[in-house]
Amino acid sequence: MASTKKLRMGMIGGGPGAFIGAVHRTAACLDEEIELVCGVFSSDPEKSYEMGKQLGLASDRVYATYKEMIECEQKTKGMDFVAIVTPNHVHYEPAVLALRAGFDVVLDKPMCLSLQEARELSQIVHDTGRTLCLTHTYTGYPMVKQARQMIARNDLGSIRKVYVEYPQGWLSHAEVNSKQAQWRLDPKRSGPAGCLGDIGVHAFNLAEYITGLQVTHVCADLQIVIAGRQLDDDASVLLRFNNGATGVLMASQICTGEENNLKIRVYGDKGSIEWQHADCNTLAVRWF
Amino acid sequence: MASTKKLRMGMIGGGPGAFIGAVHRTAACLDEEIELVCGVFSSDPEKSYEMGKQLGLASDRVYATYKEMIECEQKTKGMDFVAIVTPNHVHYEPAVLALRAGFDVVLDKPMCLSLQEARELSQIVHDTGRTLCLTHTYTGYPMVKQARQMIARNDLGSIRKVYVEYPQGWLSHAEVNSKQAQWRLDPKRSGPAGCLGDIGVHAFNLAEYITGLQVTHVCADLQIVIAGRQLDDDASVLLRFNNGATGVLMASQICTGEENNLKIRVYGDKGSIEWQHADCNTLAVRWF
Amino acid sequence: MASTKKLRMGMIGGGPGAFIGAVHRTAACLDEEIELVCGVFSSDPEKSYEMGKQLGLASDRVYATYKEMIECEQKTKGMDFVAIVTPNHVHYEPAVLALRAGFDVVLDKPMCLSLQEARELSQIVHDTGRTLCLTHTYTGYPMVKQARQMIARNDLGSIRKVYVEYPQGWLSHAEVNSKQAQWRLDPKRSGPAGCLGDIGVHAFNLAEYITGLQVTHVCADLQIVIAGRQLDDDASVLLRFNNGATGVLMASQICTGEENNLKIRVYGDKGSIEWQHADCNTLAVRWF
Amino acid sequence: MASTKKLRMGMIGGGPGAFIGAVHRTAACLDEEIELVCGVFSSDPEKSYEMGKQLGLASDRVYATYKEMIECEQKTKGMDFVAIVTPNHVHYEPAVLALRAGFDVVLDKPMCLSLQEARELSQIVHDTGRTLCLTHTYTGYPMVKQARQMIARNDLGSIRKVYVEYPQGWLSHAEVNSKQAQWRLDPKRSGPAGCLGDIGVHAFNLAEYITGLQVTHVCADLQIVIAGRQLDDDASVLLRFNNGATGVLMASQICTGEENNLKIRVYGDKGSIEWQHADCNTLAVRWF
Repeated sequence: MASTKKLRMGMIGGGPGAFIGAVHRTAACLDEEIELVCGVFSSDPEKSYEMGKQLGLASDRVYATYKEMIECEQKTKGMDFVAIVTPNHVHYEPAVLALRAGFDVVLDKPMCLSLQEARELSQIVHDTGRTLCLTHTYTGYPMVKQARQMIARNDLGSIRKVYVEYPQGWLSHAEVNSKQAQWRLDPKRSGPAGCLGDIGVHAFNLAEYITGLQVTHVCADLQIVIAGRQLDDDASVLLRFNNGATGVLMASQICTGEENNLKIRVYGDKGSIEWQHADCNTLAVRWF
Repeated sequence: MASTKKLRMGMIGGGPGAFIGAVHRTAACLDEEIELVCGVFSSDPEKSYEMGKQLGLASDRVYATYKEMIECEQKTKGMDFVAIVTPNHVHYEPAVLALRAGFDVVLDKPMCLSLQEARELSQIVHDTGRTLCLTHTYTGYPMVKQARQMIARNDLGSIRKVYVEYPQGWLSHAEVNSKQAQWRLDPKRSGPAGCLGDIGVHAFNLAEYITGLQVTHVCADLQIVIAGRQLDDDASVLLRFNNGATGVLMASQICTGEENNLKIRVYGDKGSIEWQHADCNTLAVRWF
Repeated sequence: MASTKKLRMGMIGGGPGAFIGAVHRTAACLDEEIELVCGVFSSDPEKSYEMGKQLGLASDRVYATYKEMIECEQKTKGMDFVAIVTPNHVHYEPAVLALRAGFDVVLDKPMCLSLQEARELSQIVHDTGRTLCLTHTYTGYPMVKQARQMIARNDLGSIRKVYVEYPQGWLSHAEVNSKQAQWRLDPKRSGPAGCLGDIGVHAFNLAEYITGLQVTHVCADLQIVIAGRQLDDDASVLLRFNNGATGVLMASQICTGEENNLKIRVYGDKGSIEWQHADCNTLAVRWF
Repeated sequence: MASTKKLRMGMIGGGPGAFIGAVHRTAACLDEEIELVCGVFSSDPEKSYEMGKQLGLASDRVYATYKEMIECEQKTKGMDFVAIVTPNHVHYEPAVLALRAGFDVVLDKPMCLSLQEARELSQIVHDTGRTLCLTHTYTGYPMVKQARQMIARNDLGSIRKVYVEYPQGWLSHAEVNSKQAQWRLDPKRSGPAGCLGDIGVHAFNLAEYITGLQVTHVCADLQIVIAGRQLDDDASVLLRFNNGATGVLMASQICTGEENNLKIRVYGDKGSIEWQHADCNTLAVRWF
C-alpha cells in the first residue's frame, strides 16, 4: 500500500520474544495516522529479517544494525521517526545516533543507564532541536489527565499527601524463563536499578505528573527478596515534595498474585483523587 | 509499503461521522496480520475519496460504490475480504455481492432486515463456500470464552437460570444530533427493530453463546419511551431455553446515566458465573 | 436491672433454631431504647421456657402460648408492644389478639396468608388506633431513604424504568435441613407464595417505597425449579407502574452461589440511582 | 428485669458526646449474653447520672467516680467486669483499680500513655490473674481471623511483604468542634502520640495479628500537617519483621475525603491476601 499521508515509523527492537515492541506497534496504529515502514528488530540479523517479513515489510527496509538503518533511512528520507524498544542498555546509543541524524525519537523508559547519559541526551535534544519522547504510558489515560488538570486549577487545594504504588507479582519466584525477565534481572542490560527502574519510574513519574510537584528528598528501603538476584525486586520509599507535601512510593515485583495495578492517591486540603490502572476509566474524587 | 504477508481488507462504510468503521479498522490491525487496502467509505463519493486519502490509501483503491469496488477488486485480486460496516439497510446487498464475487465477508450486526433476507444469505454462504462473519464482538473476550468452556464441560452443572442485560442511556432524550443516532431511529435504515436490533442482539447472542442453549420462547415487553419515536427504545423479555431453563433479557437505550455495560449471569445446579463488559477481564465464579 | 425508661418489648417466636427472632432482638437494642421483658418463643412450652431462661428473662414472664402472654401482660401492663417473628401462618391471629388487647405490633413480613386476612388486619388497625409495623427492613437503610427523597423532590425527573432483583442461592438444592427452610417450603406454614412471598415482597416493597409509585399490572413467570416442591422458588415479573413506567422484578432462591443481594435501579429522564444491599452505604447517582 | 444469666457489665466513660462508649454498649448486647448494670459515664457526676437514667439504670447503680463504683460493686458483687471507654489519660488508673478489686477489664486502645505504664499493667494482670482485654476491634472480623489462620497453617508460604494502611480524613481541617476530636489533639489527654496512637495502633496490631510476626525495626516519618497541632496527624512507617519480611504502615487523619478504611495486604511466596474494612466480608486470596 502506497501511503501518502501517515507518519512513517522505524523501529529498533521488538523482535521474537519481546514484549513492548508489539505494544508500540499496535498503539502506533490506533489512530490510523502512523505506519511502520522499516526496522531492525533484533541484534541477530536473521531474527530481524524474519520479524520484518512477518510484519509485511519490504526486505530492503529491514536492517541488520540500527546504525545501518539510521544511515540508510537518513539518505532516503524514508522514515519520519524511530521507536526504540530495546532493553535498557540499548537506549542511549541509538537515541543519540537517531537524534543526530535528524530523527525524532520515541524511547521506552527508563531513559538510559546513568544520570550522566541522561544529561548528555538532554543536551543533544537541545542542540538538534528534535523531540525525544519517553513513553511513561500511564500519563496518557484520560482520567490521569483529568486529575492533573483538576490539581493544576487548584480544585483539590494545597496538596499535602501522595500515595503511589505499583505492585506486581510476576517475579515472585527465582525461576524465570521469559526473555524479558532475564534482561531485567541482569545489571549489564537493565542498569543499576531493578524494580525501581522498571516500574518504580512509572509510579514516580505519575506522582510528579499528576501533582505538578517535584520530589526533593527520598528515604528508600530497597530489597532483594529473591536470594541470588543482583538488583532490587522490591522497594518502599518515603517522599518529600517541593511544596512540603510528603508521600510514599511502593513498587514491587515480588507481590505474589498481583498483576499490574499502578495506583495513585493524592490529598489536598479541599479534596482528593484516586486512580488505578485496573479501573482506568474511573477517577474517584472526594471532597472534605 | 509493499506488504507481502498480511490479509488485505476492503471496507464498505466507515466514513466521516461513522462510529463502528474506525473500530473495525483499529481492531483489524491489533494482531499485525491485516491491512486495509481499499474501500468505499460513504454513499457520497466525495466523502469516500476524502476518507480514503486520510487513511493513506492510494486513490485508485478508493471507490464511489461498493458494486464498483467488488467488481474491480475481483478482477485484480487485490483484496482478500471485505468488512461491511454500514447502517443496517446496507448489509444484505453488499454481502450478497461480495460472497458471490468470491470474497469472505465480515458483517456488522444485525445481519439484515428480515428473516427472509437472513435465510437467503445463509443459502448463499452455503452455495459459495465463503465465510460470513457476524461481529457479535462481546464473544471475543477471554472471560466470555472461559465461561462458555466451563459450561460446555458441565462445570456449572445443569443450567437453570439466565439473566442478561444491556442498559444504555445515550438515547434518553428526544433530541439526538449524531449521525449514528439518526439512522438507528429511522425504520428505513435500522429495520423493524430499534433497541432490540441494535443491542438486544448482543445480549441474546451472548446468552446463547455462553450457555450453548437456544431460546425457544419469549414474552416481550417492548416500549417506546421517548414519545414520537417509531422504534422500540427499551425492552424486557422473559425467556425459555431448549433445556427448560428460564431467563430474563433486558435491553434499553433510555436508562439515563448508563454507559455501555452488557452483563450476564448464568446459574447451574453446581455453580454460577457472572461477567460484565465494564470489568471485562474478571469472571466471577461461585459454587454452591 | 430495674428499667425506668426503655420501651418494653414482648416477643412471639424466635426460639431455638429460628433465624429472624434473634435479629429482631439485636436490632431492638441497638439504640438502647428498647428492652425485652417477656416472650413466648416456641409452640413447645418447654423450648419457650428454655429460651426465656437463656435470654435472662424472669420465669414468670415466659409463657406457653401467645394468648396467655397477651392476656397476662394486658392485665399487668408489663409490656409496651409485641414483636411477632413466627412462620407466616402464625402472623394473623396473634396480631389480631395483640391489637385488640391494646398493644402495638411489630410483624415480620409477609403480613399474612391472604388478601382477605390483610384487609381484616387493616380494619382492626383502623378500629383500634394501634400501630402495625411490617418489617420491610431494607427501607431502613440511609441510602434507601436518600434515594426515596431524591425521587420525591424530582431530582431524577419523571421515572421511566425500574429494575429490582433479589437473587439468593440457599434453596438451590432439593435437600434442606434447616428449620427455617422447611417451613418456607411448606404451603401450610408459608402460605400460597414461596420465593415471591419470602423475598419477592422485599423487592416489590422497595420498588414502590423508593419510587413512590404503585405497581398496577404484572406479567409473572413463576417457576418451581427444584422438582418436588409445591411453591415457587424462582420468579421473573414484568411490571407496569401507575405513572406509565415499566420495570422488571426478579426474585429467586435457586441462583446457586448468590448470597442475599437485593438490588434496585431506577431511571428517570434526568438521572438514575442504583443501590444494592451488598454495598449498602453507597448510592450510585448518575446524570444524563 | 431480673437477669439470672447474663454477664453483668459496668462502664467507665461513654457519657454525652462520647463516641466509643455507645459502640461498646451496643456491641456488648449483640450476643444477648451481656447486660449493662452500672456505670460512671462522665467526670461530671451530673452528666453521669443523667446518662445512667437515660440508659434505664437504677439510680443507685450510677456513680460519681470510678473509684466509688469499683469499691461499691466489689462489696455487693453486683458487676462481673468493667469496660473502660474514657480518653487515653483515664485508662491506666481505673484499669489498675479494677484489676486489683478482682474485676476483669475491657479497655479501649491505646492501652495507656507510656511503655512504663504498660509494663506495670502487664505485671498487675499477671499478679491478679484477671483478664485485661484491649479492644483492637478489627481482629474480630471473620475474614481477618480466616486470614490469620491461612497464614498460620502456611497457606501463603513464607511471608515477605506487608502493606497496611489506615487513611482517615476527619481531622483534615484545623477547626474541629467535636468533643472526641478535642481530646485526641490534646497531649495531656491523648498522650504523646496523635494519629499513630489513635489509629496507627489498629494498623500495627492488625499486621502482627494476621501475620503472627513481630515488628522489630521501624523508620517513621511523622508529620504535623495542620499547623498549630502538637501531635502527629499523619505518619508513614517503613517496617521490618522478625522473619526478615519488610513492610509499610501508613496512617493519617488528614487524608481529605477518606472515611475509615483500614486495609491490609500480605504477600507470601505462595500467595497473598487482601482485606479492607470497607468490604469486610470479603477476603481476596491470590495465588502465584
